[in-house]
Amino acid sequence: MKHAGAWNMLTVAVCMALLGCLQAQELQGHVSVILLGATGDLARKYLWQGLFQLYLEEAGKGHSFRFHGTALTSTKQGQEVIAKVLESLSCPRDTAPSRCAELKAQFQQLSEYHRLKTPEDYLALSKDIEARVQHEGLREAGRIFYFSVPPFAYAEIARSINSSCRPGPGAWLRVVLEKPFGRDHRSAQQLATELGSFFQEEEMYRVDHYLGKQVVAQILPFRDQNRKALDGLWNRHHVERVEIIMKETVDAEGRTSFYEEYGVIGDVLQNHLTEILMLVAMELPLNLSSSEAVLGHKLQAFQALRGLQRGSAVVGQYQAYRGQVRRELQKPDSFHSLTPTFAGVLVHIDNLRWEGVPFILMSGKALDERVGYVRILFKDQAYCAQSEKRWVPAQSHCLPQQIIFYIGHGELGGPAVLVSRNLFRPSLPSASWKEVEGQPGLRLFGRPLSDYYAYSPVREQDAYSILISRIFHRRKDSFITMENLLASWVFWTPLLDSLAHEVPRLYPGGAENGHLLDFEFSGSHLSFSQPPLEQLVLGPDSAPMPSDFQVLRAKYRDSPLISAWPEELIARLAGDIEAAAVQAVRRFGKFHLALSGGSSPVALFQQLAMGHYGFPWAHTHLWLVDERCVPLWDPESNFQGLQAHLLQHVRVPYYNVHPMPVHQRQRLCAEEDQGAQAYAEEISTLVTNSSFDLVLLGMGTDGHTASLFPQSPVGLDGKQLVVLTTSPSSPHRRMSLSLPVINRAHKVAVLVMGRMKREIAMLVSRVGREPRKWPISGVLPDSGQLVWYMDYDAFLG
Amino acid sequence: MKHAGAWNMLTVAVCMALLGCLQAQELQGHVSVILLGATGDLARKYLWQGLFQLYLEEAGKGHSFRFHGTALTSTKQGQEVIAKVLESLSCPRDTAPSRCAELKAQFQQLSEYHRLKTPEDYLALSKDIEARVQHEGLREAGRIFYFSVPPFAYAEIARSINSSCRPGPGAWLRVVLEKPFGRDHRSAQQLATELGSFFQEEEMYRVDHYLGKQVVAQILPFRDQNRKALDGLWNRHHVERVEIIMKETVDAEGRTSFYEEYGVIGDVLQNHLTEILMLVAMELPLNLSSSEAVLGHKLQAFQALRGLQRGSAVVGQYQAYRGQVRRELQKPDSFHSLTPTFAGVLVHIDNLRWEGVPFILMSGKALDERVGYVRILFKDQAYCAQSEKRWVPAQSHCLPQQIIFYIGHGELGGPAVLVSRNLFRPSLPSASWKEVEGQPGLRLFGRPLSDYYAYSPVREQDAYSILISRIFHRRKDSFITMENLLASWVFWTPLLDSLAHEVPRLYPGGAENGHLLDFEFSGSHLSFSQPPLEQLVLGPDSAPMPSDFQVLRAKYRDSPLISAWPEELIARLAGDIEAAAVQAVRRFGKFHLALSGGSSPVALFQQLAMGHYGFPWAHTHLWLVDERCVPLWDPESNFQGLQAHLLQHVRVPYYNVHPMPVHQRQRLCAEEDQGAQAYAEEISTLVTNSSFDLVLLGMGTDGHTASLFPQSPVGLDGKQLVVLTTSPSSPHRRMSLSLPVINRAHKVAVLVMGRMKREIAMLVSRVGREPRKWPISGVLPDSGQLVWYMDYDAFLG
Repeated sequence: MKHAGAWNMLTVAVCMALLGCLQAQELQGHVSVILLGATGDLARKYLWQGLFQLYLEEAGKGHSFRFHGTALTSTKQGQEVIAKVLESLSCPRDTAPSRCAELKAQFQQLSEYHRLKTPEDYLALSKDIEARVQHEGLREAGRIFYFSVPPFAYAEIARSINSSCRPGPGAWLRVVLEKPFGRDHRSAQQLATELGSFFQEEEMYRVDHYLGKQVVAQILPFRDQNRKALDGLWNRHHVERVEIIMKETVDAEGRTSFYEEYGVIGDVLQNHLTEILMLVAMELPLNLSSSEAVLGHKLQAFQALRGLQRGSAVVGQYQAYRGQVRRELQKPDSFHSLTPTFAGVLVHIDNLRWEGVPFILMSGKALDERVGYVRILFKDQAYCAQSEKRWVPAQSHCLPQQIIFYIGHGELGGPAVLVSRNLFRPSLPSASWKEVEGQPGLRLFGRPLSDYYAYSPVREQDAYSILISRIFHRRKDSFITMENLLASWVFWTPLLDSLAHEVPRLYPGGAENGHLLDFEFSGSHLSFSQPPLEQLVLGPDSAPMPSDFQVLRAKYRDSPLISAWPEELIARLAGDIEAAAVQAVRRFGKFHLALSGGSSPVALFQQLAMGHYGFPWAHTHLWLVDERCVPLWDPESNFQGLQAHLLQHVRVPYYNVHPMPVHQRQRLCAEEDQGAQAYAEEISTLVTNSSFDLVLLGMGTDGHTASLFPQSPVGLDGKQLVVLTTSPSSPHRRMSLSLPVINRAHKVAVLVMGRMKREIAMLVSRVGREPRKWPISGVLPDSGQLVWYMDYDAFLG
Repeated sequence: MKHAGAWNMLTVAVCMALLGCLQAQELQGHVSVILLGATGDLARKYLWQGLFQLYLEEAGKGHSFRFHGTALTSTKQGQEVIAKVLESLSCPRDTAPSRCAELKAQFQQLSEYHRLKTPEDYLALSKDIEARVQHEGLREAGRIFYFSVPPFAYAEIARSINSSCRPGPGAWLRVVLEKPFGRDHRSAQQLATELGSFFQEEEMYRVDHYLGKQVVAQILPFRDQNRKALDGLWNRHHVERVEIIMKETVDAEGRTSFYEEYGVIGDVLQNHLTEILMLVAMELPLNLSSSEAVLGHKLQAFQALRGLQRGSAVVGQYQAYRGQVRRELQKPDSFHSLTPTFAGVLVHIDNLRWEGVPFILMSGKALDERVGYVRILFKDQAYCAQSEKRWVPAQSHCLPQQIIFYIGHGELGGPAVLVSRNLFRPSLPSASWKEVEGQPGLRLFGRPLSDYYAYSPVREQDAYSILISRIFHRRKDSFITMENLLASWVFWTPLLDSLAHEVPRLYPGGAENGHLLDFEFSGSHLSFSQPPLEQLVLGPDSAPMPSDFQVLRAKYRDSPLISAWPEELIARLAGDIEAAAVQAVRRFGKFHLALSGGSSPVALFQQLAMGHYGFPWAHTHLWLVDERCVPLWDPESNFQGLQAHLLQHVRVPYYNVHPMPVHQRQRLCAEEDQGAQAYAEEISTLVTNSSFDLVLLGMGTDGHTASLFPQSPVGLDGKQLVVLTTSPSSPHRRMSLSLPVINRAHKVAVLVMGRMKREIAMLVSRVGREPRKWPISGVLPDSGQLVWYMDYDAFLG
């Protein structure tokens, strides 16, 4: 092997010297690169240059190349454009002009233009390649098809390549695709299926050109080369926050037809910023050179992302956008675009490494500066005993400690990696990274440049050149696999859906934005720091806002009714529960709370977990109102919801938690295990008089409550406290508190939310006490208090 | 009432005008103030002035006063000193000189000196007071005894007052005591008991003069008056950290005899800084005017303090200190004082409001500046969309948000309350607080003064004047109750004990200290930021440091032995457990871990909870090796230790936790409840082959392991997996895994730590397999692996 290596190096040197070097080329075979859309913007600006770069780097290493630029244009016109592009190619900085001319001439000779329109054209191209290979006595190594065309053309081209232009057996095919890859999960899935019918996944290279940016490409190697310093730091105990930012000064003018479809989230966050997020957050594989390991770890990180909700983002739109859209898309003056051109998103990652660390993703057009960066800010966990006047920046742990991957532009004017000097001296490969020279007066992220170890690339390289080389070298980890793509859309689509009717905050653009777009978070909720100005655009269905209404107090079935918009309703209910808890603990030393499962209580659990410091959890006993006969760890288990949304966040002692014994001796609700009786006994033993302090119920659209369904033969009366029942919907078997024990409670709260409940709410308001027909109508505490909590959707309809 | 109020105000005005105002005085009775140690430093500097102030404020309101300065000095000498002091008293700033002279003359007339040495002297004083009261036809209201004497004199004086100098029935007694109140919990308790035999608790006013400092006294009112703004902010979700700091430039020269006994912790942290901590952390009572409510809430906050450990503090000593001690206390050159003159302590409060928020307490002598402050720094939860150049300090939420109670000195030169302008505009009583005028160029806590709303007192008042007035008004909440005092010592004493042999870091003093005393925290562990310099002083038992040793690998009872200093040993064991967990989860999808109780595993639990991100908790099942027959919530329960130190901090699903069923149907280990059989069944069902992946054992000084004691009739062999056993020590009844099930485990780790285990470790190393004599000798897994983890204390002795 050693000899072979040395020989290869020699060959390379000789080949480079002689130009051409046919013998070596024959060893590795012939590679055809077909650049589709070769006369387009992207191709002219980056791709031809990238191919030239590839040629310069690889030609000497044993391959022969041919570069086929193709488009729909006529051959003559295409040839003219290509000739001009090839003429304007540039050589590496240190190449002598004469040498550069030679190299370009060589490359021009290997490049040609084809019109590629009909299936016949593809067949012709394929024949042409085969003929050439045969004629020159070469072996075909493979073909690269680079799709630099709009996505609507993908399918047709893919079909043609697959049917008429695949290389023969033994040679590989690589197709290179550019984003957008769909605009939500469904469309991405569709596109993936479509392309999947023509190509193998391993044949496809989906480009996110951010992965080719030098600093982005350096994130994983940096983490790898500085493992020793980072091992203890790269986690929730030390990272205060991560900012992943791409700010643009330009706006969407001239591109609104594209922009209207994708917005800033589809254009930047779903792809570029998400990819960077993964590089920062993923577990670092032991061996970075394994594409498979990198991709596997990335996918794992995707799976730990906490789902986004409407409150996870703030969105804005620069003021001129709607005018541009109307002009460019010929829309009437009444047309109001809701497309965000600015978005700030708060991402959380639910694993032990990152739990609780805010990842802030932000991008926008018409902002005050052009800059992209990833900033990892470490927690300030030091106290400096001296007056701050005396702090020495490189030594004081009280000054900010941060690592910044500066992607480019901004005040620094180019890519760089910055590490605070009070953190550690990073190790970067000295062949490709050099220390940045001082720029007096320049401050970055609150500190002068001199406070950082700062490195920039020895030679700035274009992202496409880097990616084209990686395609050639089959470095799949620099591309988006279908799994990763779909995982990203699974993550972003719910947010896009929930924002569909949200009116973005208008902003003037540029420095004028002031603090208008600043945002802040509390828990996992994001909001603009400044209160909204006068609403200038109203959305298509501009519903009245919660604050337009007061909490409504009234009667429902002769009991108090609290009605409000959902958020207020939940806040009110949580407050009432806390008050009951505080009172019970003060009087009796403990609080017995029985909770229902289902989706409505989730918001309540979250509210209780986050907003109630005074809640006496240590003295609270939690009981279940009902349970499905599934193991406690089953996602369908009511207990599981309680665990995920409440128990995980508060400190209820283990022995104060009372799940229903639906799963004993590995059996589900077996009569002979006497689970219902055991639960009843537990209640009798621990709860004075079997009177819970508070029981929280819901109401089903069929009028059921707890797991007491219409016509239930048990649980509606009698002496049993706990019963096994049957639900009309799966899972059918349930365990439930009985009506009699519910009615012994000191307080019963019934929470009813959503439009779906409107009809039953209307109906139940009119009927008498007929628990056999509508079990909920049997809820009426013997001596306790019943309160109905209904949101406007359920109550007002 | 309104009328009465108006009349009172009128009276006051008239009285002040007429001076004297006998009629009103008769209404309220006569008050005698006896200042013990009236010629001492404190009295001359502050107390006489405070009494003068009291007189000025209260004389018009219906009391007559007499001020008795007393000391051991002869009457003549004493009178001379007092006369000088009274001459130097100062009037409020706006008093005309002639008026001031009048007032002072009046006060001088009411003041006199007594020699107070023998019991007879006390009796004479008492008679004197009675005679005067009678003679002037007054009613005696009460007597205030202010102890401005060294604590060793307290008992004797207290005895004399109690026996000979109490006022008659219907009149009150107040005795005012100055710290130190003991030097640890034992001595404080002793002092409290002693004084308690002479005085009622309600008669005693223990002074911490920090509570009289204007800014400190303002903390609770500030919290109260700004409830609306603070309600959402004053908690762990928003507070980043709290710093409570008192820096001095002076050193202990001339006071080393006192300082050697108390050090910086007894001198400053246990009292002043702790009191401030409570004012910041306690729940705010609804009604601040209730002393009882304030004191009750304060006591509650004490109870939520997390215990301090050796790692909770860093300590230092200025270099000149030892020389000063040798000179002043006539010690030989070989004497090395370990008394800290600098301490940084990290305090955590374990309640829902403050959990996880670091409270940093720091004080020291010979530092670079004199300053005291409380700084509440809020979390930065904002992202500012504009370049930082454009941030407007009063609007940008990205600049620091903080509230500072500036106690005094420092760059600001006096007391002040500061609130960042980007936080909220605070409300302070405008009669007593005014806005601070700008001081260009002055920066405080990283920001120019102009970034703050800053208020200083309209009139600076001395702490003692304030406190003397509060004693008079019976504001007990400005003083230290016995309960609070003991709670504070309960908190500080373990740290003092653990620091007793710690060598403090030497520091040069003043600006020279550089970054030498900076410290930082990780979890609840504090350490100096800079690595130690050459050790200049060696303590009396300067043990070798852990780093001097490698982890030792050897054999013990023919099984692998890991031996190291405790921290390394625990780190190693935690690492090994994690590795086993990862491996088991990878292979089988779950990890069954059986844990022992007791004190040694606590450090292990903490290590696992804090340092192991990769630990697959979600797939780990936790079992108990043994349990005491007490309810699970009993502090003696092994499960309770597991819950407090591990379960609370990691995410083990509820249903993966398997406490031993020692408490069923409200009975403890009743044979008929078949708890042991039930646990055995649970094991058989969930654990393949009943082979735990890892069992962690300990070893008792009698050679017991799990709860298998010498001569146990059950559990040493046979088929039972779980048995009920009897312990020689209380609680006697136990449940335990049996030796056979322990020996079925894949891995068994035995953790043995501390000197106490040395003998048994030696013995067990020599004996054969004799489980009936030494149950631990029966541990030998059938096919699994046994590893011994012993610290050097246990193993090397």
